[in-house]
Amino acid sequence: MATTAVSVVDVCRSAQRAARALARSDTATRNRALRAISTALLERAPEILAANERDMQAGRDAQIGDALLDRLLLDHDRLAAIAAAVDQIVALPDPVGEVIDGHRLPNGLDVRKVRVPLGVIAVVYEARPNVTIDATALCLKSGNAIVLRGSSTAVNSNAAMAAVASEAAVAAGLPEGCVSLLSGDHGELAELATQKHYVDLIIPRGGERLKAALEEVATIPVIYAASGNCHVYVDASADPEQAEAIVLNAKTQRPGVCNAAETLLVHSEIAPVFVPRILSALHDAGVELRADERTRALAGGVASAGDGSSVSSLTLAQATDEDWDTEYLALTMAIAVVDSTEEAIEHVSRHGSGHSEAIVTRDTASARAFQLGVDAACVYVNASTRFTDGGEFGMGAEIGNSTQKLHARGPIGLRELCTFKYLVEGDGHIRV
Amino acid sequence: MATTAVSVVDVCRSAQRAARALARSDTATRNRALRAISTALLERAPEILAANERDMQAGRDAQIGDALLDRLLLDHDRLAAIAAAVDQIVALPDPVGEVIDGHRLPNGLDVRKVRVPLGVIAVVYEARPNVTIDATALCLKSGNAIVLRGSSTAVNSNAAMAAVASEAAVAAGLPEGCVSLLSGDHGELAELATQKHYVDLIIPRGGERLKAALEEVATIPVIYAASGNCHVYVDASADPEQAEAIVLNAKTQRPGVCNAAETLLVHSEIAPVFVPRILSALHDAGVELRADERTRALAGGVASAGDGSSVSSLTLAQATDEDWDTEYLALTMAIAVVDSTEEAIEHVSRHGSGHSEAIVTRDTASARAFQLGVDAACVYVNASTRFTDGGEFGMGAEIGNSTQKLHARGPIGLRELCTFKYLVEGDGHIRV
Repeated sequence: MATTAVSVVDVCRSAQRAARALARSDTATRNRALRAISTALLERAPEILAANERDMQAGRDAQIGDALLDRLLLDHDRLAAIAAAVDQIVALPDPVGEVIDGHRLPNGLDVRKVRVPLGVIAVVYEARPNVTIDATALCLKSGNAIVLRGSSTAVNSNAAMAAVASEAAVAAGLPEGCVSLLSGDHGELAELATQKHYVDLIIPRGGERLKAALEEVATIPVIYAASGNCHVYVDASADPEQAEAIVLNAKTQRPGVCNAAETLLVHSEIAPVFVPRILSALHDAGVELRADERTRALAGGVASAGDGSSVSSLTLAQATDEDWDTEYLALTMAIAVVDSTEEAIEHVSRHGSGHSEAIVTRDTASARAFQLGVDAACVYVNASTRFTDGGEFGMGAEIGNSTQKLHARGPIGLRELCTFKYLVEGDGHIRV
Repeated sequence: MATTAVSVVDVCRSAQRAARALARSDTATRNRALRAISTALLERAPEILAANERDMQAGRDAQIGDALLDRLLLDHDRLAAIAAAVDQIVALPDPVGEVIDGHRLPNGLDVRKVRVPLGVIAVVYEARPNVTIDATALCLKSGNAIVLRGSSTAVNSNAAMAAVASEAAVAAGLPEGCVSLLSGDHGELAELATQKHYVDLIIPRGGERLKAALEEVATIPVIYAASGNCHVYVDASADPEQAEAIVLNAKTQRPGVCNAAETLLVHSEIAPVFVPRILSALHDAGVELRADERTRALAGGVASAGDGSSVSSLTLAQATDEDWDTEYLALTMAIAVVDSTEEAIEHVSRHGSGHSEAIVTRDTASARAFQLGVDAACVYVNASTRFTDGGEFGMGAEIGNSTQKLHARGPIGLRELCTFKYLVEGDGHIRV
């Protein structure tokens, strides 16, 4: 496996050679490799956990904080979960070789549009070392070679896991170079992101800083698994009970993820009834609120909340312009009153990040207008934004959620890690 | 319509507003706009031809050469052909709203993956003014707003045609700003290629210089309608007659286009018979040949060609390393002898541009190996590379051929000018 002694371009060149062999490999071989990785992770747990302990110690010395330390930590349970996730990917259908489309042309030529691997995929990621294995399993399953580039915080954990994965995959019959890990040195990112002869796609998995760093330097195709500034719009005709359940779920079920809602929009006709109710419910759920003027005016009438406290306009923070553009990733929500579905769409167009947007309504015209008018990967009617997820969508695993419009939009599963080619068969056909 | 007085960012912002309305427009309205454009091109022919004459005069003054002048020229017949091409796009099925995929999740949520317009597409093109209308018709048909940026050589022709198209489309009910033309000023390209808030895709239609210029500056997604260094590989088991017909067709039927073949590879087992035959045939067709040593050695035995001349190793130019990477776009062909299908695949991997590659063979194993092993948009068995074309593939029209792997590969038709979104419908569904 490639280590620090080898240059970025050498790693990528070797990955491309591996990719050519992988493109011709069969499903059985690739699945055997994934099962071998899963087994090796458990068999070689001691060396992986020892490597992780070195990272943990370095992290404690550098005082990186409890949250980061927890993300960095591996133990037997976590390793078992990582191995189990690989087994789940084994069970997924192979995207390679799927015939997407096909027909016979009037001149008798047979055309098939067939799914094939992209080639070499680079994955750049931050602290969480499980990505080393998750991304490797998804890329190998879809017939791609992978070049990994983790963070320096997890350098020992990543190196141990990538070595285990690479050795297991090669022993199971996949080509040398199918899994490589770069050292994590400074400067590598720019070099990796410009390997247009060798790398077909780069996927950053991390925060906005990583995204910005890549935007700066990348000349090869990038799919950003990006942030989500998601909205729930409660229409005039919404069932208040359903609306409350959806808002609470979208905001509080797991606030730190990209498909959690950040802003609530309420139609002015239902606002006098719904705003006090939802403010109280969100308050009870521990959500900090940032409201526009109209919401604050309605908050005066809020009944005493379940815990005896109450939400009034006095305790409701005034939303600033910045709030509408903020992905809190926390128990904080911005709220505004709008006068129409059109105004809600306009707000979402201006501030949304194109991830997941929901309307709660009983009116078919509003539902249709919202679905047509909102430009996002996933548009929900009467359901929580939290469902945007490869697992929930039945794709099996995912490597992230794309908010861009080309190639992959929404969950990036095995199919999205592929391209296609046209196979055309004739019998001496020439063009006249 | 936007003209020189308006900044690039204003044009793009206005295009985005138009795109939002276009995304909700129905097929009938968009088709009506296309028919109005087609009609207006003929009704307003005098002003278009007058504008074209100004460009022609400037071109003659600047001595741009007969070939470029011919590409620039518009007359009644050419305008009629441009209008007819628009009518053909009217007749194509609307890609917008197509349900690509859909199913009900175990929890009862209904998921549909629906094709939707990309939004704003920028098309950057060189001399040929017909692109102004072709690209506009394809973008409007697929529900996208278009920002055009032509060359300064055709500035008057482009402005006249874009004005006609824009006015006709708006009169037919499409939003203001759906068709805009930039002035063609220096510096605009870099500004256009970085409008990440307003432009969803930029498509260059031009030569390698335009591609290089864009690679330098673009931060928004680009689909390169790129060059084709295409090969025909004649396998040991090929039918010589079929092979000759395919090679001649791929090389000579229209040598100046991207799907024409540039290099011929011949298996060493068939080479003693086939090389003299194909050299003679290519020579008769006026093709200049660049051959490797082994081909030259076989050329000595070439029989007298049809015109009484003969091809011998003495008149066969030696191919240089550069030849294998050259897209001649002319009646020139490089030839090499290889010892196996594997070696042919290896040559294509090293030198091909991922466009169109063909094998001529009677052996199923060779055909399968070539299809699996060659990484290109279109891989042919016993057919000419010249079939790579949206029209030939039954897509109707195309805006070019993509040699990249993400989003669009091969002909870029109406579907490739679209993205998709997931529409998810529930009845109060929340994630547990």
